[in-house]
Amino acid sequence: MLDRMSDPPPRGYAANKDQLHKRLARIEGQVRGVQKMVADERYCIDVLQQISAIQAALNKVALGLVDDHVRHCMTDAAGDERRRDEMTEELMGAVGRLVS
Amino acid sequence: MLDRMSDPPPRGYAANKDQLHKRLARIEGQVRGVQKMVADERYCIDVLQQISAIQAALNKVALGLVDDHVRHCMTDAAGDERRRDEMTEELMGAVGRLVS
Amino acid sequence: MLDRMSDPPPRGYAANKDQLHKRLARIEGQVRGVQKMVADERYCIDVLQQISAIQAALNKVALGLVDDHVRHCMTDAAGDERRRDEMTEELMGAVGRLVS
Amino acid sequence: MLDRMSDPPPRGYAANKDQLHKRLARIEGQVRGVQKMVADERYCIDVLQQISAIQAALNKVALGLVDDHVRHCMTDAAGDERRRDEMTEELMGAVGRLVS
Repeated sequence: MLDRMSDPPPRGYAANKDQLHKRLARIEGQVRGVQKMVADERYCIDVLQQISAIQAALNKVALGLVDDHVRHCMTDAAGDERRRDEMTEELMGAVGRLVS
Repeated sequence: MLDRMSDPPPRGYAANKDQLHKRLARIEGQVRGVQKMVADERYCIDVLQQISAIQAALNKVALGLVDDHVRHCMTDAAGDERRRDEMTEELMGAVGRLVS
Repeated sequence: MLDRMSDPPPRGYAANKDQLHKRLARIEGQVRGVQKMVADERYCIDVLQQISAIQAALNKVALGLVDDHVRHCMTDAAGDERRRDEMTEELMGAVGRLVS
Repeated sequence: MLDRMSDPPPRGYAANKDQLHKRLARIEGQVRGVQKMVADERYCIDVLQQISAIQAALNKVALGLVDDHVRHCMTDAAGDERRRDEMTEELMGAVGRLVS
């Protein structure tokens, strides 16, 4: 699915790539922060609070991707019923994993 | 309660109304079951397990509604960018509430 | 904890039984409300919002039961390491189901 | 980070510190992997799947910390009702953040 030689159709989230990148870099830093907390044997309730903050940040990233995908689907697959069904199924698989 | 002679555009989930109704009736029965468990002072871990089963059943109903909405959006709002944005925003609000 | 004259070991949540019962009765009503919304073909986003409200109410009930169990464990199983491990494992199974 | 001069009482999770550290290092790698996926403009559904995997891994870490805390509470605060209530409240705050 990668390895394309030429102009890939812009992904839904391409426009927000910078913002996404920034958010993920911050999340990476938060995970490193938790590692340090564990190394320092910080109180586990404080560690848990930090983990909840990371979960919330990941949810925001995920919801942003879902949002882009839905908009992208509707533009892209509008005329093509089979493509539409395919994209909806993929989407619902992803949302289902997030929800449960 | 369907069988309308005119206007209202059929809701996305109208086709599955019977299935939805059955699922919700079963969930109602499960909630009553939990009330009985509490009245009988059943072990709280067993009550918790039953509550998790209800949550899972509600998630399934919710995901079915999201699925219908996405398909409905893509058919209905295909040509209308403003309507599309509106429906996507509503959807993302709903998905966001489910995920967090 | 319940001033019972005989047998049944008091459940952790026995003290809050009335409150629990009230909450569950309200949740049952909310589920019935969703059934009516579906029968009336209400907009699925509104149905989803109502389902999220039920999920939140169920989470509150579940967290109350977990709270009672933890307090109960600590009082009851304080001196008995094996009982303590058993209760912790049961609890973690229940919390794990709620979280995932 | 806690400025303790002397032998701190072992945190509940101290025994599992190595395992915790390994898990968090792997999660950090997963977050970096998602950053690369975004840089490569990989299909957003694949990115979402990877984010769900990170969420699941974080949940496992969190549940491990809750487990340690509960065992720790029950050993440590067994005789001290006030300390017990305090630890239960902290715990329930943390579990509540994980669940909702």
